[in-house]
Amino acid sequence: MRIPILKLKQYLLVTIQWELDDQTAMQFQEDILKRIHETEAKGIVIDLTSVDIIDSYIAKVIGDVVSMSNLMGAKVVLTGIQPAVAITLIDLGIHLDDVPTALDLEKGLEKLQQELGE
Amino acid sequence: MRIPILKLKQYLLVTIQWELDDQTAMQFQEDILKRIHETEAKGIVIDLTSVDIIDSYIAKVIGDVVSMSNLMGAKVVLTGIQPAVAITLIDLGIHLDDVPTALDLEKGLEKLQQELGE
Repeated sequence: MRIPILKLKQYLLVTIQWELDDQTAMQFQEDILKRIHETEAKGIVIDLTSVDIIDSYIAKVIGDVVSMSNLMGAKVVLTGIQPAVAITLIDLGIHLDDVPTALDLEKGLEKLQQELGE
Repeated sequence: MRIPILKLKQYLLVTIQWELDDQTAMQFQEDILKRIHETEAKGIVIDLTSVDIIDSYIAKVIGDVVSMSNLMGAKVVLTGIQPAVAITLIDLGIHLDDVPTALDLEKGLEKLQQELGE
């Protein structure tokens, strides 16, 4: 099981439409970093609209993906964070303070363009 | 297993990144028609870049999805058809003559905008 990663211009789009298990999450982390390198992507939108619950491990992986992508020069915008997921993230002490967020994929792309000053 | 469907503006983007089995293909057909109805999408890009081989059943499902989507008022562009897939489609007598195609997702979106006169 791999999470599909779409390339659109200089952006990568990811939509997570089912619960991530630990192995899929690690595979996703590896895949996205590889794709950033291959495609020289400047920005990534990760859409979590269909994720209803999240555990501490998955939350950490997502936080790590954001930090690692930033290190590699790609800005990440998270979109579609559900109420229960927001509660879990804060309860777990994962604040993602510097991570731009938006309501949906489309607004995420707009935000990304803003962040990148385009 | 479901194929993720992304909504971007009035378009739906689908990327098929693994071999489809029969059940996933049928589920995909059902999901995409439901999403067209829900989102009032005007166009769909189905990206087959990662599909290396295709059998007659899957080819038929994809052909059907194109026809059904057109009936519902959404234009479909197929992108990233690999040489082996093109060969199989023609060998099977599935010509998809009226279906616009493009090299990748990005060019597919451009084509869609052209086709819709935007």
